[in-house]
Amino acid sequence: MQGSQQSAAPSAVYPPSDRTVPTRAAERASYDRESVHAILDEGYVCHLGFVRDGAPVVLPTLYGRIGERLYVHGSTGSRPLRMADGAEPGLAVCLTVTHVDGLVLARSAFHHSINYRSVVVHGIAHQVTDPEEKRTALDALVDHVVPGRSRDSRPANKKELAATAVLRLDLAEVSAKARTGGVNDEPEDLSLPHWAGVLPVRRQYGAPLADPDLAPGIELPDYLPEGPR
Amino acid sequence: MQGSQQSAAPSAVYPPSDRTVPTRAAERASYDRESVHAILDEGYVCHLGFVRDGAPVVLPTLYGRIGERLYVHGSTGSRPLRMADGAEPGLAVCLTVTHVDGLVLARSAFHHSINYRSVVVHGIAHQVTDPEEKRTALDALVDHVVPGRSRDSRPANKKELAATAVLRLDLAEVSAKARTGGVNDEPEDLSLPHWAGVLPVRRQYGAPLADPDLAPGIELPDYLPEGPR
Repeated sequence: MQGSQQSAAPSAVYPPSDRTVPTRAAERASYDRESVHAILDEGYVCHLGFVRDGAPVVLPTLYGRIGERLYVHGSTGSRPLRMADGAEPGLAVCLTVTHVDGLVLARSAFHHSINYRSVVVHGIAHQVTDPEEKRTALDALVDHVVPGRSRDSRPANKKELAATAVLRLDLAEVSAKARTGGVNDEPEDLSLPHWAGVLPVRRQYGAPLADPDLAPGIELPDYLPEGPR
Repeated sequence: MQGSQQSAAPSAVYPPSDRTVPTRAAERASYDRESVHAILDEGYVCHLGFVRDGAPVVLPTLYGRIGERLYVHGSTGSRPLRMADGAEPGLAVCLTVTHVDGLVLARSAFHHSINYRSVVVHGIAHQVTDPEEKRTALDALVDHVVPGRSRDSRPANKKELAATAVLRLDLAEVSAKARTGGVNDEPEDLSLPHWAGVLPVRRQYGAPLADPDLAPGIELPDYLPEGPR
């Protein structure tokens, strides 16, 4: 129904919650949907936290995004995926993505910092049981790492699909946090004889290393860079 | 006492525990102390997990290492640091450091992977109360990001020290995990018409951006690169 809550465009921001409002540096937090998506789409490795026997566990893993849903995958035997088995009650998770953009060197040790952008997602992850959603999610995971790649690879067969579990996490309780800009030293420290400034950091790709057993005539696809970028 | 357990060199490996033996890809796990230290020393941002109201929280933060101790810091008002206030019982944490070394593009979607090295540390974090240990830890945090930097900056004053809390986490229940090498496709997939190989990934530093208010005559210190590296 036009105009109903179901079909309306999503709000431009995620509603803040007790968990997503930081206790400090609140001015660095944002709930803007576009900013959150942009940070998520620039990365492909997240750190997934869950609780096992009362203690926290944080594991790096790949993720993909389709609209307001994040997907992670793993062997059906892996711990978080076994723990989220079945539709209910799901697994409480915290999924965090961080990009480091620069090292901030202040004149004072105290004001040293990092320029970064991060997204923290809280929620309950559920195993994807619908085969079609599972296939789409796996394509999204591959395309998140290399856009366009899923169409240029053999799709998972039945056995591979059965061995792979996929978790879905809705983007609902979400915040982004970023530090940008230069050095924030105390005014009385500006004359100190220490260099201060920002050392930019970025991710760089090297020249692709082709598998020695490539089929004859296979060339580097357009979606990969030829050299460092 | 020479030869006593106190003064003996630490064992070359961390003893595996139920939490540090993975349920899958166990051949990628290592408990080797030198490997763990090397992975930790190459990074400076970790993902720190803890449990709040029964749910996991994962936050990016800087860390430093002195021997078999890791340190993280934050405002005395930040959540994990408040939660670890007081010597007992401490805060159960999982501290994870991950380096991405390459994207592994297989002919099959299923065998796509990432070359990476990671360290996962489980334990109880305690607030550092000894002023000398706190100072040393803060120096280690700064030097972990830029080796040699702590000597070339103004040390924290009393007020700054009071505003900063430091957590210590002993390296005891620790594992490293790594994937290296090329594509592992199924033999029957080798003739498929898809490019396969590895796209190397690394962290790159750009040219330093000096603060506009540098004191006269301050030059770029030797411990910083002049251009991209």
